[in-house]
Amino acid sequence: MTVNILFAAQPDRWVQYETPLTEALNATGLAYDLRTEFAPQEVDYIVYAPNCAVQDFTPYTRLKAVMNLWAGVEGVVKNETLTVPLTRMVDEEGLTQGMVEWVTGHVLRHHLEMDRHIVNPGHIWDHSPPPLSKDRPVTILGFGALGQACATALLNLGFPVTGWSRSPKPMQGVTTHAGTDGLPKALSDAQIVVLLLPATAATENTLNADTLALLAKGAAIINPGRGPLIDDSALLAALDSGQIGHATLDVFRVEPLPQDDPYWAHPKVTVTPHIASETRPDSASRVIAENIRGNESGKGLLHLVDRSAGY
Amino acid sequence: MTVNILFAAQPDRWVQYETPLTEALNATGLAYDLRTEFAPQEVDYIVYAPNCAVQDFTPYTRLKAVMNLWAGVEGVVKNETLTVPLTRMVDEEGLTQGMVEWVTGHVLRHHLEMDRHIVNPGHIWDHSPPPLSKDRPVTILGFGALGQACATALLNLGFPVTGWSRSPKPMQGVTTHAGTDGLPKALSDAQIVVLLLPATAATENTLNADTLALLAKGAAIINPGRGPLIDDSALLAALDSGQIGHATLDVFRVEPLPQDDPYWAHPKVTVTPHIASETRPDSASRVIAENIRGNESGKGLLHLVDRSAGY
Repeated sequence: MTVNILFAAQPDRWVQYETPLTEALNATGLAYDLRTEFAPQEVDYIVYAPNCAVQDFTPYTRLKAVMNLWAGVEGVVKNETLTVPLTRMVDEEGLTQGMVEWVTGHVLRHHLEMDRHIVNPGHIWDHSPPPLSKDRPVTILGFGALGQACATALLNLGFPVTGWSRSPKPMQGVTTHAGTDGLPKALSDAQIVVLLLPATAATENTLNADTLALLAKGAAIINPGRGPLIDDSALLAALDSGQIGHATLDVFRVEPLPQDDPYWAHPKVTVTPHIASETRPDSASRVIAENIRGNESGKGLLHLVDRSAGY
Repeated sequence: MTVNILFAAQPDRWVQYETPLTEALNATGLAYDLRTEFAPQEVDYIVYAPNCAVQDFTPYTRLKAVMNLWAGVEGVVKNETLTVPLTRMVDEEGLTQGMVEWVTGHVLRHHLEMDRHIVNPGHIWDHSPPPLSKDRPVTILGFGALGQACATALLNLGFPVTGWSRSPKPMQGVTTHAGTDGLPKALSDAQIVVLLLPATAATENTLNADTLALLAKGAAIINPGRGPLIDDSALLAALDSGQIGHATLDVFRVEPLPQDDPYWAHPKVTVTPHIASETRPDSASRVIAENIRGNESGKGLLHLVDRSAGY
């Protein structure tokens, strides 16, 4: 029987995905029909971007799963009309690799204090080398697939890495802490902090005045996770006081970041435009197609969202 | 019999090295005497910085070896009064690790095009992500201990790496070329080039108008090696024409770089003040002490300089 797959996202996404998703589905050997419109009661799977027209899942009476195109599911996880399984994107080849490159690059940038050479109008020849990576502790908040992949890359380069997550996630070579009690231990004396937590009610303002005060003086904050993880006022105050030396922020409560946001002009803030990691159509299409094939063959779905936890 | 070791470098180096070198020599169990002055005919080993007072080795009649404190030996290798073995610094823990961090950081900086976010006075939110590392070929010129260590770090991050050296130096996972004939192959279509060659007559102006033209348009040059490897006029012309997109230069024909040098103000050049890698006193002292112990026990010297090749 033909598997009907609805692609529900903004039209510009269809331009990116039509060819790679068709090729990936062809490679599965499934009989399928992939379209941007169906009668709701005919749809088996929805490939989904939360900002699309489909917000009421009630009419999709034979729906087997909704497959989110991104890693973050906060735009759909609270939708009460959604009663079938929800999967998130775990795209090792594209999304994870891109995140590892971005995080490793910005950790090294802060570690090496590159900015004072990149912007050096006084032409100052200051021959003082940075410490070696072994003396630069890095803490990663959020220790799922992305956090652990970044940890591996940083360990390879010699950084001492601490990981923190809601539930314990031990990893060889990494100091790990978990839960509310573990957070102060994970943050104490960290010189670089990378935020890779999901956006949930429990993670909102994880970095606030109290937790920022635990870091080593002059620490750097790198946020490729989600905007609400940071109490923005507290971060700006900590930057102004010198407790935090620099923040490189890729995600914000409102995107694109409004022109009047104080982050734009702050001398200790680097704004990057939500580019730390992108779902790449080629690899993401293969992940979706493989997941549908696995479910159709009775193996079940990978990358299921825990609806109660919110990610 | 006591081994007499002369520390011959500028006085500020003695401040850095006296304690770690003493500790490292104590750990060898050798009977030794370490000083900054000896009667020349009593000296067994000289720990040496080329810019020091010892320029005539003739009076050192029982000298067994000169041990250069740095990796680069161009300041001593042509000294005709030196007839005993010369070693260079191969300091995996300090010098090599520092170089790997600096090279990996600047390769990622260019790969991720960080500068357009670090310096963004127009507050432009340009949401176009860079390619993945697998689509960013990096070529390393000079494929000794430093070049191969950098190659390993870049391979771990997914970059396709090509290595070039005077004599063939194969390495798993890397495309290698050697000799004059191999240079154009190594440079063709490279998007990022890292210079880690020694400074010799044969390597002078390795990057010149002809070789720069072989690179991918807009390629980045990263030079943590030696200043004379680059024909500066040719590089400036290639930057102005757009053939080269950016150059990050850590070493120069004259250091500190003179204030009127055109590199300082060039918008496509980043000057770093010879900090890519430093010999670190702790780890370098252990390397020197171990090398003396090995030679005294009859195993011979490590890290010998090939005087005819110049490095």
